[in-house]
Formats: sequence, structure tokens, C-alpha cells
Amino acid sequence: MADDGEEEKNIAAWLLGIKTLKLQPYHLPSLGPQDVKVQIKALGICGSDVHHFKTMRCANFIVKKPMVIGHECAGIIEEVGSEVKSLQVGDRVALEPGISCGRCSHCKNGSYNLCPEMKFFGSPPTNGSLAHKVVHPANLCFKLPDNVSLEEGAMLGYLLAARAFGAPKIAIADVDVQRLSIAKNLGADETIQVSTDIKDVAAEVIKIQNQMGSGIDVSFDCVGFEKTMSTALNATRSGGKVCLIGLAKSEMTISLTPAAAREVDVIGIFRYRNTWPLCLDLLRTGKINVKPLITHRFGFSQKDVEDAFETSAHGGTAIKVMFNL
Amino acid sequence: MADDGEEEKNIAAWLLGIKTLKLQPYHLPSLGPQDVKVQIKALGICGSDVHHFKTMRCANFIVKKPMVIGHECAGIIEEVGSEVKSLQVGDRVALEPGISCGRCSHCKNGSYNLCPEMKFFGSPPTNGSLAHKVVHPANLCFKLPDNVSLEEGAMLGYLLAARAFGAPKIAIADVDVQRLSIAKNLGADETIQVSTDIKDVAAEVIKIQNQMGSGIDVSFDCVGFEKTMSTALNATRSGGKVCLIGLAKSEMTISLTPAAAREVDVIGIFRYRNTWPLCLDLLRTGKINVKPLITHRFGFSQKDVEDAFETSAHGGTAIKVMFNL
Amino acid sequence: MADDGEEEKNIAAWLLGIKTLKLQPYHLPSLGPQDVKVQIKALGICGSDVHHFKTMRCANFIVKKPMVIGHECAGIIEEVGSEVKSLQVGDRVALEPGISCGRCSHCKNGSYNLCPEMKFFGSPPTNGSLAHKVVHPANLCFKLPDNVSLEEGAMLGYLLAARAFGAPKIAIADVDVQRLSIAKNLGADETIQVSTDIKDVAAEVIKIQNQMGSGIDVSFDCVGFEKTMSTALNATRSGGKVCLIGLAKSEMTISLTPAAAREVDVIGIFRYRNTWPLCLDLLRTGKINVKPLITHRFGFSQKDVEDAFETSAHGGTAIKVMFNL
Amino acid sequence: MADDGEEEKNIAAWLLGIKTLKLQPYHLPSLGPQDVKVQIKALGICGSDVHHFKTMRCANFIVKKPMVIGHECAGIIEEVGSEVKSLQVGDRVALEPGISCGRCSHCKNGSYNLCPEMKFFGSPPTNGSLAHKVVHPANLCFKLPDNVSLEEGAMLGYLLAARAFGAPKIAIADVDVQRLSIAKNLGADETIQVSTDIKDVAAEVIKIQNQMGSGIDVSFDCVGFEKTMSTALNATRSGGKVCLIGLAKSEMTISLTPAAAREVDVIGIFRYRNTWPLCLDLLRTGKINVKPLITHRFGFSQKDVEDAFETSAHGGTAIKVMFNL
Repeated sequence: MADDGEEEKNIAAWLLGIKTLKLQPYHLPSLGPQDVKVQIKALGICGSDVHHFKTMRCANFIVKKPMVIGHECAGIIEEVGSEVKSLQVGDRVALEPGISCGRCSHCKNGSYNLCPEMKFFGSPPTNGSLAHKVVHPANLCFKLPDNVSLEEGAMLGYLLAARAFGAPKIAIADVDVQRLSIAKNLGADETIQVSTDIKDVAAEVIKIQNQMGSGIDVSFDCVGFEKTMSTALNATRSGGKVCLIGLAKSEMTISLTPAAAREVDVIGIFRYRNTWPLCLDLLRTGKINVKPLITHRFGFSQKDVEDAFETSAHGGTAIKVMFNL
Repeated sequence: MADDGEEEKNIAAWLLGIKTLKLQPYHLPSLGPQDVKVQIKALGICGSDVHHFKTMRCANFIVKKPMVIGHECAGIIEEVGSEVKSLQVGDRVALEPGISCGRCSHCKNGSYNLCPEMKFFGSPPTNGSLAHKVVHPANLCFKLPDNVSLEEGAMLGYLLAARAFGAPKIAIADVDVQRLSIAKNLGADETIQVSTDIKDVAAEVIKIQNQMGSGIDVSFDCVGFEKTMSTALNATRSGGKVCLIGLAKSEMTISLTPAAAREVDVIGIFRYRNTWPLCLDLLRTGKINVKPLITHRFGFSQKDVEDAFETSAHGGTAIKVMFNL
Repeated sequence: MADDGEEEKNIAAWLLGIKTLKLQPYHLPSLGPQDVKVQIKALGICGSDVHHFKTMRCANFIVKKPMVIGHECAGIIEEVGSEVKSLQVGDRVALEPGISCGRCSHCKNGSYNLCPEMKFFGSPPTNGSLAHKVVHPANLCFKLPDNVSLEEGAMLGYLLAARAFGAPKIAIADVDVQRLSIAKNLGADETIQVSTDIKDVAAEVIKIQNQMGSGIDVSFDCVGFEKTMSTALNATRSGGKVCLIGLAKSEMTISLTPAAAREVDVIGIFRYRNTWPLCLDLLRTGKINVKPLITHRFGFSQKDVEDAFETSAHGGTAIKVMFNL
Repeated sequence: MADDGEEEKNIAAWLLGIKTLKLQPYHLPSLGPQDVKVQIKALGICGSDVHHFKTMRCANFIVKKPMVIGHECAGIIEEVGSEVKSLQVGDRVALEPGISCGRCSHCKNGSYNLCPEMKFFGSPPTNGSLAHKVVHPANLCFKLPDNVSLEEGAMLGYLLAARAFGAPKIAIADVDVQRLSIAKNLGADETIQVSTDIKDVAAEVIKIQNQMGSGIDVSFDCVGFEKTMSTALNATRSGGKVCLIGLAKSEMTISLTPAAAREVDVIGIFRYRNTWPLCLDLLRTGKINVKPLITHRFGFSQKDVEDAFETSAHGGTAIKVMFNL
């Protein structure tokens, strides 16, 4: 049977325990009529992968049995299901990692990222995509334009934030000078170094507002600590918005009502929805450039996988760690 | 001079100190070309008036010198400025209490309620409208339809919430059985009695969700305590909204990020904007009825003013306390 | 085989030619894991059914081979697919008639009604639901509350317009006095009789605006003629919206730019999306009542089907013609 | 009296008749407490100015008596009113040309561009700003950043369209090769030459869609002819929007209902609102560059004014004709 041969050839990186990754065979599910089989060629390590690697969990998701890790990836179509019309063998594609049910109220009103039955690459108990091959729905595989590389395709999830660079003026605040320097290179108009001390909020808010010059319409808290949220709530102009993306801290003590009394709204953002087509247009027309974010590259041997995750987990100068399979 | 005679006749309720109100003459500003002079005929006591009465402050607004109290009012036009075309002497009008600058970015983009130079009846240091007469811009005086009483006109600020009764299904949660009973009479589909104990949040959220039957799209926290906000954040469906109106507590410890990860947004609402024309249409067509909210009525003698504020401050069975001047 | 027996029992109304309907056996597709089999109990004749009956086409959709007619229906669950959890045998349900692909960009962003692969009951070449039984996806079958009848369930598509009655003030314009009278009974605040003569637009616009009293925020053109669209464009206030629902005329000569220069937007609306849950809440809480719209009832014999469609096609006093199966 | 001396010095370009402009003294209104007096330094000729010059009218606005022409301008503050805090003498500013009433429902909900009492520079009967000096409300004078020239300040109204270049992909269609070439230089991703023949719509729509590659979310009809509107309605994807800005033709024969059945909305846009602060941020951060649009420059003698308007009216290679006063 074809599947037997398949199983021998298809190798994946399995998370077996804390900081324990092992290259092992990965038996793929059968190819449905609307599915494609993809040879993964590039995969970037994301913060949630590192969480799983270090702690066997991320937020409320707990790794209870061996799981293939990884989810930000791109590859080449090897086989297409019988009803797939939009893709053909050989196409280079970026993979949107989450499969929603298509039937619940969230899926039907366009907020499929909130689907309670979501199956998301490398989010337990769903296997991820750090493997030679995966099977995935064709409608979640987006053909890359000729001028977009597979590595760029594997970073598409990151582009959403970069999209913000189309705003009239952008300021980035961070504790790390090196990251601020990269932000500057990527097009930030202003960068502001901040501390981790909650007592500095008032002074830093003034500093941020002064550097921006005009009122701040939208702030993004990409961390989710009391300090970052307090800074965002205070720095944003009356009638503006704070987008809360980071999920570092569940319970936080913050001055929410004074912000509400200035009609500063808090907007929650979870993962992504309908962002791949937009990001591909931005890459195709050269309006954004994410290549400078790749700081390390690895192959796909047992040692590569271990070294790559250690590098990413260590932090330091590592921004985006990329596998080339 | 006409103003002298005017001053003798125009009496207002001045807040002189904590729980100290005094009927005294109130010299009106001169009538500008776009202003009208209004004989106040009905005025309802609002929660913020009670705050001023009891503590000489409300949120960050502090009463530092004698101030005329009151702001929810309706009356009859006595005189119109030289350029006023929309109103004439004898018209019955409801008064929107806040005068915005008309020049700042908030005023120009329609969120004039956020104007930093707002002059709001009875919010220090601006004098209020519990007086025989006031001078006010004509564009903030809305002519009452024939079938709407002056008392209803004085309650228009309250109608915004009642407007919600156009939603497909409404549940009201409150600690007070009597208020729940009135909510039921006004058209609430479900009422749920809740406690003030933060430990009850989880159980009460389930109770509220069960009574609603389907997901809760929008919640309104009209109080602003940790418990009310926690209940709202947890009870609202993924992708829904929590409107934060109440301002009871400035700093609160809440689980904001789990709500954000479900894309439950927190929407701040401050006072009102562009609500009078809508509310007048709702009253004119009989779609809402606020008369049941009036529980007490008073005249405008020194004793009346003292008794009315004591009644309102005492709470208990008092919902809306109304002056008839 | 069970299907054989099934086929004998399942009878449907087939459209064979212009004004030619025949009761004949209807072999159902097999029940998928996410499907349910429904015994249809109530079905209302819609305008598009009448178009098919009279002309074998509706807009660009042409009936090229025999097709089961009908799409507005409700019934009782007879069998559930192996993975269906939300419904059980015996449940009374309303059926949303269109099955979208779930994979295209429209489906993924929530506008599934625009799906180019939509399969819609009784819209060629997809068979309809005027049959004893149909197979349908469970997620498109909405359980009726106890206080909502099957007939009401079969009219849910009509409720969307009725929902508008939650607006602060509603005026209905029509050429027919009887329909205006029903509109009044259903809660219209104002009714205006208009002509079919384009020369009357200016005078009728003034009449409509006068009866409304304040500016018209939103107009619905439920017909789609030059005259109705011209009336809507002119009557709506600057900055308001005209919703174009009726599709009577494809090409029309209208004064679009003067409306655009007043920022009156034209909003297209096609069929329905995500309306069933909302409509069910409105029915459950008694906020709308559509029963007065049913003017005729029929059974499901060959003669009933013929008479019912003739009655509906004739127009006159017939508003909603309902089958009880 | 100061005004006498003022009148001698202040010269403006008066439109006296068709193609008849004359430099004559212009007596300014007195400076109100919230006003500033501005020395105009740069003024660009706009299409509506040319309409007035050639026909003494534009749309429904008719020049019935001598009127100062011009409205796109920037200059230097010479004097500030007693209550002006945001500006001081010597500040370089761009002038938003329309003064709205600040009291009507449009002004209060943020759509002040729809104010029925709008006084707009150079739109009869309001005098324009092609003059040495004008008096204008301070809140409509926007301070230029150091890196933005007065000429750029005078073109701010044009920047709104350029803002669209922040979109992921832009295609420009035009009949003129040279204008397409300039569009390419300004950052258009695709340019498509089209004809003025209505019969070419179907073929051109396919060409435009092919060059865009993915669905067109938003189209702008900046002309307002039957052909341009038909092209926009057909080319835009289902669920997208067509913004109608051009006002060339009042009545047009178009296929509006098929577009509505695909939920393509028509959005009207009139002049501008709240665009200056955004445009200034875009210029300050170098995200847009409008200098290439200036093709001709003139001084402010009688001959200059005549030549400049003749050049602009002639069309041909002239894009933006600029006065330096």
C-alpha cells in the first residue's frame, strides 16, 4: 500500500517532553478530495513553539502526548485531491495553519479564528508541520507569487504587524536596543526604549507622545503585561484603540475605567483571519520586506532541530530562526 | 438695565458645600446670536448630581466654588438670539447639557463628547440648570413633539439605555429585586439577581448564559466594579463586545487577556453624542416609555430642593426624582 | 436497500415546464455525517418560486431540466448524520436554503451569501424543498423555540425586513392600498401611497419626507425600478444609505452623482446571511409577528400545488401562500 | 483706521466674467477671536477653479457677482485672534478651505463636509484665497512640519488619493498615456490605458482584473461618466466598494442592480473631512511625494494670473499649476 512507503519517507520533529525533540516517522492522514499534500521547504520557529518546547504548554493548551511541532511554513505541492482546482503539483505555497469547522456561527460570520473546533498545526493535540510532508486543505494553501521566496512564505503570519507600516506614522517601544534597531531598519518612524518598571509608565507615556507629535490613534500591546497595557491605555488618544495581542499575563491590575471614560477601546486579536491574501499582495508589490528578521538558519537533522530550538529559546540576538528542509 | 430685573427673578439651586444646597439668584450670561433663553420646567436628579451633593466631587471633577447643580432638563423657550431660526418663543425643548468647542479634532470628527474644553451643566466649574432660566445654544435645544411631555424631555439622557430594548433579547442583572422588577416592566426579557461577591462570578455567568439561551453579543457594565466587569467579560460570547459605562472603580484587577484572546472587545462610552434626535423619534413613535421610572416629584422651594436631593441620595425605592419648576 | 423504499415514499413538486408542476418521486442524496433528513411540514411560496413557475427562469438562473421547486420551509428531523451533535430526531427546525462551499474567500470572510458555488433550494440546477423529505446540512437547520410554529419557521426569510421595525420610525411607500394597510398593522409608523409614474418622484419625495418629520437615515428599495430607486436616492438624507434589494430592472437611468455628492451610499443586499439565529430570537421574544402575512393555506395534493401556485401567481389579495405538508 | 491701509495692500484675483480675471483690492473681514490672518504664499489651481473660470459655474454653484477665485493654498500667519492658542505669527500653515456651521446634525456627527451652510473658498458666493492675505478660522489652519514646503501644503487636498498608495496593490486606468506615466512614477503598481467608448467596458474590465491578479476590493471613479462608473461597477469584486468622487454627469444609465446583487456598494465622497492632519503625517514621514505633480509655476501679476489659468484650462501637459505669491 502506498501509505506504507510514505510512512518510511515522511519524517517529522516530535515533541516528546520538555526540551525533548526527536526526528521520527510521521504517518500522514489520507488525502481528501479537497486536500493537498505539501513538501515543507521552510519553517520558522514561533514564540508559541518555544513555549511548547520549554514547558509542554502554551496558555491553556497542554501537550499530553507526543506531537509534531511547528506551524509557520511554506512548501511545494506534491499531490492534489480529486476536487482541487486552484492548485497543481509543483506550486509553491504558504500554509495557513488553522483548520476551522466551517459550520459554527464564528465560521459563518467570518471570524473563523474563533472557531471552538479549530485544529491548528502544532497546538495540542493537533500535529504541526515541521515534517517533510503534510496533508492540508487546499483552501488554506496560498500560491506564492514568483518574486516571493519560500522563506518569506513561511513568515507570512508575521507580516500582519508589518502591515501597520502603511500607517502615516509608527513608533515602536521595546526594552531591547537591538530589536529597536531592527524596527528602525524595517521602517519605524520612531523608536523608544522603555523599562520593565511599572513606575516609569507616566514618564514613558509622555516620551512616546512627544516623539509621535500628534495623537496616537491605535496602539498594539504585543506583550500583555500590566506595564505594557497601562502604557498603551494611557498613551492612546481619546477615542483611539488599544489592540491587545500579547497574552503574557492572564489577570492584570489596570486603570481601565479612566481609559473607557476617554472612549479608548480595547480590541482583542487572536491569531489571524483572512490575512494571507493581503500579505501576499504586500510582498508581491514590494511594500513590505521581512527578510531582515531572519537571523539564523538550520537544516533538518536531529542536531539541527535541537540547536535551532535551543537558539530560539535562548533569545538574545535571535529574532527569527528558520529551517530549510 | 434689563439684566438687573432678570437677576432678581432668576433663582437657582446653588451647591455651597457637602449636602448644602441654597436657592439664590443666578445672573445669566448675555444671550448670543445663536443662543436661546429657556424657562426650565422639569429637571431630573442624576447620579452625578448626587455625587456632587454628597461629596462635592464626581470622578476628577471637584466643586471648588458655589455652583448651580443639575443638568437633565427640559423647558420652554422664552427668548431667541438674533440668528436662531430653528426655534421660537413658546417652543417646548429638551436640553442637551454639554457645550463643546466645535474646533478641536474630536468635535470635527463627530466625537464631540470627548472635547477637552467641554462645558457641561452642573459639572464643575460650569453652572448647571436647576434654575428658573438658563441661556443655552439653540442647537442643543431639541423641540419636543406634541405627544412628549416636559418630564419625558428631562429624561432623554436615560433613553439611550432603553433604546437597547430594540435588541432581539435583553437580560438585566442587578443585586436589587425591585430594580429588576422595574426592568421587567420596561421590557427586559430576562432578569437575573446577582450578588456583590466576586467569588460568585463563574456561577452567575453560567446562570446568565443559560437564561439568554444563545450567545451574548453585547454586554453593558453600567457600574464599573471588578465584579461587574469580570461578569461581563466572561459572559459575552467570543467576538462580542463589552461596553463599559459605569466608572465606579478606577483601577481594577481583571482577566483581560483571556477575553482578548476570545476577541471580546471593551468599548468605552462617555456621556452621550447625537442621541437626542434618536431618542425623540423613539418617544414620538411610542417605541419606549420612561414614565414608570419617575418615583418621586418635587416643586422648587428651598425645602423641595433639600428633600428631593435627600430622597435621591438615600436610594432605596427612589429611581428617578423629578423637579417640576 | 433502504433507499428504494425511501424513494417510493418521498414525493416532491417538480417544475417540468412553464406553469407545469407535477407531484413525482424524489430520490434523496445519501445522508452525510454532518447532514440531517427533514420531514418538510410547512413551505411558503416566494416571489422567485413564482418567477420560475411562470417563466422557467429568475434573473440569470434558468430552469433547463425538471427541478423540485420551493425553498422557504420548516420541518421535523427524521434522521441525523453520524457526527451531528446539535440536533436530534423529532426536533422542529427552520431550514436556511443555501449551501455555500465553505472554502472560498467569501465564505471565509463571512459573506457566504456571495459564494460563487452556492447551492440554493429551488434555484436551478439545485432541487428545492417542496417535498415530503429533504437532506440538508445540520448547520443550516435551526431549532425552533417552543413558542414558534412551523409556519413561522417557514417564513423566517421574511423576518429580516420586519426586523427594521426596531428602527425609531418607519414609513412604507407602496402603490397598493391593501399592502399599506397590512404594513400599518405590522407596525409601520407612516404609510404613503405612491404611483408608478416617474414624473411624480419630486412630489412624492416631499410627501415622504414630510411624513417622516426628520431626515431619513436609511431607505430600502425592495423593487428595483428606476422610479423606486430615484425616490430612494432623493428622499434619503445627506450621509444616509439606500439599500437596494429588489432586482426588477437590470439597467436603470438614475441621478446617481447628485446622491453621491450628498454622500448617500447605495448598499447592495443579496439573499441573507447569518439571519436565522437573529430572527429566531426576535420571534421567541415576541418582538415581531409575521402571522398576519399568511393569506392562503393549501395541502400537498397535485391539485393543491397547482391551485397554490396559481393563487400566488395571480397576486391580488394573496400575500403569503403556505403549504401544510 | 487700520483696515483702510489693509485694503490698499491686499490684492486678490477677482473673477468678473467668463475667462475674465482681474487683480483688484480685497477688503478683508475683521479678525474674530478664533481667527488668524494669513499671507498666502502658494496656491494651486484646481479643476473646480477652472470650471468657474471657463463657465462661471461648477455643478449647481453659479458665480453671480465678482468673486475672489482659488482655494488650495498655504501661507504664513501674520496675525492671530485674541483666543487663538494653537498658532502664532510666523507659523507656516496649510488652509482647509471650507468653514462649516458647527451646529447642524452633519457638523455634530463628524460629516461636516455635508453642512448645508458650508462657506467654501472660491465656491460662490464665498470669496476664495488667491489673494495676498485672507482671514480664516485658526482651527482650519494646519501648521506645516519643517520638512514640508508651502507648495506641498497647497496641494494637501490632492494627497487624499495618494494616500491610497498605502493599499497592497494599486492599478490606475486613464485615457491619457502621460498621466498614466506620472501615476507609475508616483507608485501605481499597474496602469491600464482605456478608451472613452462604452462598448469597450467588458474587454477593459477583464484587462484590469487580469493586471490586478486578485479581486479588486475598492474602485474609485474620479470622473463620473457612464463608462467610468460601468467599468468600476463591473470590475470590483463581489462584496467590494465603488467610491464615486467625480461628478461629470448627473444622470447616468448604468447596470446598478447586478452590482447590488453582488453586494458591490456605491459610496459617495464629497470634498474632504478631517484629512489635513492625516496628510501632514504622511508628508512629514515621507510616505507620499506630490512634488512631481507640479508642472507649471507662476507669480502673481495680472499677466501671471491670466497665463496660469489659460495653461490650466488648456489641459494638455499641465497637471498642477501653482502660484507663488
